[in-house]
Amino acid sequence: MRILIVNPNTTASMTEKIGAAARSVANPETEIVAVNPGMGPVSIEGYYDEAFSLPGLLDEIAKGQKQGFDGFVIACFDDTGLNAARALAKEPVIGICEAAMHAASFVGERMSVVTTLKRSVPVIEDLARRYGVAERCKVRAADVAVLALEDPESDARERIREQIRLAVQEDEADTIILGCAGMADLAATLSEEFSLPVIEGVAAAAKLMEALVGLGLKTGKAGGYAAPRAKPYLGALARFAPGGDDKS
Amino acid sequence: MRILIVNPNTTASMTEKIGAAARSVANPETEIVAVNPGMGPVSIEGYYDEAFSLPGLLDEIAKGQKQGFDGFVIACFDDTGLNAARALAKEPVIGICEAAMHAASFVGERMSVVTTLKRSVPVIEDLARRYGVAERCKVRAADVAVLALEDPESDARERIREQIRLAVQEDEADTIILGCAGMADLAATLSEEFSLPVIEGVAAAAKLMEALVGLGLKTGKAGGYAAPRAKPYLGALARFAPGGDDKS
Amino acid sequence: MRILIVNPNTTASMTEKIGAAARSVANPETEIVAVNPGMGPVSIEGYYDEAFSLPGLLDEIAKGQKQGFDGFVIACFDDTGLNAARALAKEPVIGICEAAMHAASFVGERMSVVTTLKRSVPVIEDLARRYGVAERCKVRAADVAVLALEDPESDARERIREQIRLAVQEDEADTIILGCAGMADLAATLSEEFSLPVIEGVAAAAKLMEALVGLGLKTGKAGGYAAPRAKPYLGALARFAPGGDDKS
Amino acid sequence: MRILIVNPNTTASMTEKIGAAARSVANPETEIVAVNPGMGPVSIEGYYDEAFSLPGLLDEIAKGQKQGFDGFVIACFDDTGLNAARALAKEPVIGICEAAMHAASFVGERMSVVTTLKRSVPVIEDLARRYGVAERCKVRAADVAVLALEDPESDARERIREQIRLAVQEDEADTIILGCAGMADLAATLSEEFSLPVIEGVAAAAKLMEALVGLGLKTGKAGGYAAPRAKPYLGALARFAPGGDDKS
Amino acid sequence: MRILIVNPNTTASMTEKIGAAARSVANPETEIVAVNPGMGPVSIEGYYDEAFSLPGLLDEIAKGQKQGFDGFVIACFDDTGLNAARALAKEPVIGICEAAMHAASFVGERMSVVTTLKRSVPVIEDLARRYGVAERCKVRAADVAVLALEDPESDARERIREQIRLAVQEDEADTIILGCAGMADLAATLSEEFSLPVIEGVAAAAKLMEALVGLGLKTGKAGGYAAPRAKPYLGALARFAPGGDDKS
Amino acid sequence: MRILIVNPNTTASMTEKIGAAARSVANPETEIVAVNPGMGPVSIEGYYDEAFSLPGLLDEIAKGQKQGFDGFVIACFDDTGLNAARALAKEPVIGICEAAMHAASFVGERMSVVTTLKRSVPVIEDLARRYGVAERCKVRAADVAVLALEDPESDARERIREQIRLAVQEDEADTIILGCAGMADLAATLSEEFSLPVIEGVAAAAKLMEALVGLGLKTGKAGGYAAPRAKPYLGALARFAPGGDDKS
Repeated sequence: MRILIVNPNTTASMTEKIGAAARSVANPETEIVAVNPGMGPVSIEGYYDEAFSLPGLLDEIAKGQKQGFDGFVIACFDDTGLNAARALAKEPVIGICEAAMHAASFVGERMSVVTTLKRSVPVIEDLARRYGVAERCKVRAADVAVLALEDPESDARERIREQIRLAVQEDEADTIILGCAGMADLAATLSEEFSLPVIEGVAAAAKLMEALVGLGLKTGKAGGYAAPRAKPYLGALARFAPGGDDKS
Repeated sequence: MRILIVNPNTTASMTEKIGAAARSVANPETEIVAVNPGMGPVSIEGYYDEAFSLPGLLDEIAKGQKQGFDGFVIACFDDTGLNAARALAKEPVIGICEAAMHAASFVGERMSVVTTLKRSVPVIEDLARRYGVAERCKVRAADVAVLALEDPESDARERIREQIRLAVQEDEADTIILGCAGMADLAATLSEEFSLPVIEGVAAAAKLMEALVGLGLKTGKAGGYAAPRAKPYLGALARFAPGGDDKS
Repeated sequence: MRILIVNPNTTASMTEKIGAAARSVANPETEIVAVNPGMGPVSIEGYYDEAFSLPGLLDEIAKGQKQGFDGFVIACFDDTGLNAARALAKEPVIGICEAAMHAASFVGERMSVVTTLKRSVPVIEDLARRYGVAERCKVRAADVAVLALEDPESDARERIREQIRLAVQEDEADTIILGCAGMADLAATLSEEFSLPVIEGVAAAAKLMEALVGLGLKTGKAGGYAAPRAKPYLGALARFAPGGDDKS
Repeated sequence: MRILIVNPNTTASMTEKIGAAARSVANPETEIVAVNPGMGPVSIEGYYDEAFSLPGLLDEIAKGQKQGFDGFVIACFDDTGLNAARALAKEPVIGICEAAMHAASFVGERMSVVTTLKRSVPVIEDLARRYGVAERCKVRAADVAVLALEDPESDARERIREQIRLAVQEDEADTIILGCAGMADLAATLSEEFSLPVIEGVAAAAKLMEALVGLGLKTGKAGGYAAPRAKPYLGALARFAPGGDDKS
Repeated sequence: MRILIVNPNTTASMTEKIGAAARSVANPETEIVAVNPGMGPVSIEGYYDEAFSLPGLLDEIAKGQKQGFDGFVIACFDDTGLNAARALAKEPVIGICEAAMHAASFVGERMSVVTTLKRSVPVIEDLARRYGVAERCKVRAADVAVLALEDPESDARERIREQIRLAVQEDEADTIILGCAGMADLAATLSEEFSLPVIEGVAAAAKLMEALVGLGLKTGKAGGYAAPRAKPYLGALARFAPGGDDKS
Repeated sequence: MRILIVNPNTTASMTEKIGAAARSVANPETEIVAVNPGMGPVSIEGYYDEAFSLPGLLDEIAKGQKQGFDGFVIACFDDTGLNAARALAKEPVIGICEAAMHAASFVGERMSVVTTLKRSVPVIEDLARRYGVAERCKVRAADVAVLALEDPESDARERIREQIRLAVQEDEADTIILGCAGMADLAATLSEEFSLPVIEGVAAAAKLMEALVGLGLKTGKAGGYAAPRAKPYLGALARFAPGGDDKS
């Protein structure tokens, strides 16, 4: 089984950490490949960055399809481009926010997400509504820039700890979710420190993707995930135009 | 007052129709400019096309800001890139699905949307949830390709009529919404034919934007619509990288 | 275009302020007339006052119809009698709470309403549910009587400011709504002071009504807004009995 | 125990039927008094009639308070003026739609309401949302005028039966609610005929009111049901002005 | 009329208190019998205890049916086994959480539940969602074991009072619900002390059951409450196997 | 890794089929053990059977804990006893309805469940609400008894096919869920026949459990899933009394 993890943040050190997080939990016979596009924002912090991460992200998934990957993980906690990727791919696609929230719903009744910046809070709250967990999910910002998580000197870890403390006390959370792909290396130690399930989306997505592929599931194409219809794309984006193999 | 309408479908005949629809209802002192990007899909039919319409769409809005437009309308019924555009612009931005649904909520209790393809139904249902009208909104597909609306020979009008008939009968709709920017020229005749409010999003958005600008409203920047943080974008998208003027 | 604004609070100084607020934003060619009934409560503070404001309010709308107004605004933040007025009128009718919440949803992601008395909080929360914004709307009371807003000596402004401060801090609001028609003169200064969109319902309703009239929209009569059926009303209310022109 | 049932429809034959329905289920020691105001619509069919039923309805409740009644029932399926009556009265107040829906929720999982006119459907759907049963409640119109229920010659009964048949078949209802006070005499025979619980609101409200009074419950005055504040009402409505005994 | 109250907690002193609470409000002609099973947990504190209370609880209801009781009350605030009991019985069945929440919805707009242990909070929040009051209901734990309520030396009462104080202040509750059958003796004094409706589920359920029986209502059997189908149960539970009299 | 699958239906042929379904998708290094209790209903069809399946089910999980299993699957589509099992176990526990609905949400936008009997429809609709997929999930009954699925002569398969056909046509489902553990052998052929993802809960649960165990997740004990408190259970159930190792 071969799983492609696409980090839509174009920062290689983050992609390495993401790949390592996935490999640390993957089955021995699963091949994990983690990539990031060569074009797009170095970090995704809000709606605008998200929009410009899409061409590179979808291009990596298109390449991954040709290379025969069995499933795709989108490694940005905004689940950037998830629906578009599902329309593009026959194979299953999963986002890391989605993966973390579903995993949390299997082991707890109240989850709190600790993310980076305040501006990401409404984005994640909206995802919680879409994934059906809004009533038992709170979202908190640690006030940390995404790339500060790559900097060993920053006080990011301590700020995240502080929000976990508040989540337990004020939200009565029994499960914590780390709300950024850049936190992929922190789950184990924080889980031990706080004696709570602490879930990180990259590892969760990798394992759930193993499950989906193992079940032989493909993306359903009878509704909104129908393959893109053949048509021209103009100008600089022409090469992304779909050939089309669907008539609905 | 100057309003820029961006059609993210890169088909000029459609953009002309959109501009005409907006001008037909605009105040005399309002200048309406309708444009479409030079890059991206000729029509937006589903999530994948939507993703690749974003760079061109946001680029037009960025240019519009420099040209001093007072407000921006996104003329695709999927409200493509609405959140990203709000993060980018200080001026108000509105989508045509959003505009049509809000307008419908002022004149009726049950609205039915007639859109083009079946694959767009879940997209619009999701928007109805986001705009708070899901409980009183049904979405129907006329099974018509977007560009068939540009073709006077097609049976598109008759298919749309058939769905309006069913909406009145089966959904007990008291208001109809035309769910595609390409239907911008049909609202008046259909409204008369069916003796019901028939709302088309381009005109609705143009008028609601006149209202927002007239109220002196700007997009609120204290939450998810904060201006993009300064950072590099790699590769072919480098020129879209935000300069950044916000620190939240 | 002629718009009638009915203040269901029978206090003339408040009606003047309301008319001025609407005129300050209206198009030059729009005629704004603001009236209040000669019968009913001097201020509307809760459900009981609301009930007794209805005969006067609906009477003013009936008179306005005969005078050929193109649209009607109900200038009480409880949106008193909105459904009844829509059943009565062929022209569009809008309430100021409805107008403010919809306008806020176009420029922000989290709105907080600052209203007068604690007893109005559940009324407005219920409207937020009806208008589909409950998940992103908080309601706060400044503990100010409605008519204190007419008294330049009162500390009402300072109490409102205090709640705006708390809304920004505790609710993480990016948009503020002033939740009483009597606050119609405060929006501009508060918006500047707090660097946030501060929306007041009278102005918002006037501008949205210009949009609806400009679109040629009428109230849909195929459902709950059907014209009242002809029938006798007994006793003191006999003169309000509908003549009836609808058979559904 | 003395319970006042106010029929806000000013049609005496209907009030008699309502009183009889309540008496047929009341405890022997409960005194049931059924009245209708002398002013207002002869039947309530939609929002406009509803508005003009309020002064008479609230006046009867105010008189009932002076006469020492222990609880009040509002006998119109729109639950007309329920919140205003709760603000007015210290004693408990219940509406017949509310009573029927709550009773149905104790004996079934899916309820269908059969009401009179199509225009009442959105009114009742909105109440179902407010009472928390919307997800398991369908509303159907038998296309019968309210006063046709007073006419032994009309085919109203057969039309109601037809909708019950459809509710069982299409809605998979296990419980039926009769959605008009004028149907108060039909529940027993229809329940037997269809072998289903058929609930009628007047009887349900009378029995639930016996329960509330028996529990010694009073309306809570700390929120939206606070007693009306003292203030003048102008003109023809001056005599309804509240004396006020509350300061919140 | 004969009502059987089953306390699924197998602690006799608690059952006595429950019976007394019901009798103190019941009509003189109503016979109240309160029992507890001879098998199962001495107190129900969370999901596991709840599961093991079911055989004894359902056995008592089966016995009660043979003895001709007219209705059944389940006296545990988790509404343990309510659906199973409704499938078993032709007579109406009501839970005490359900009864309290519905009663509260008739006299107030915002209710707060004060329960025993923190672990019961999500259980009751889930019931609030099922009963349609979640949007206006908060749940608080007094941190008191169920059987501490049987101990006159414990500080349970003071802890409950403290939570009521907080509910009024922080939740803006206008109605309080005591969230444990073991609190059945506290409602009257607390209601007086706090000048608020304080509702206790056992009394509420007894009175609502009188109402349901008085209305002649039976449990609807056309859906999920269909009588159990005849089939063997293996092993120690064989004697509970249903004989079956239903074919759906 | 060792996963225990407990079939709470005490029918051995069904348990064998369930074990085979899980083994057919499990990783080679995963040991799957499928058991059913020796006591309880031979099939679970509705709420009453469900209640009497709990002691046997929880007993098997308790035994499984002592035997060192790493995770537990409850193989009844009602997710019988899921919360109680999570309170009992430190290891993760998953239900097959939960597993199927979550898996479906990763590959489609609209799922339809085909279950056995009409009485199970409201049970599963309630689970859909709990798992957050209600808005995009329809539930259909094939009108087949659970044990008919064990009978090769029955027309069960054809009835299931018919409902899938209707789900595609009427519900516009892009994903199908088989709503009974007894259908565990049908997913692959039906998926091929209908060219849609057809998801069966036993296999889905086994794979998702591999994922949860692989992630090192344990059930969170800080809220409703706290370990049962030590206390006596009376009578025949005494041996199930928890020893208790938690103090919340």
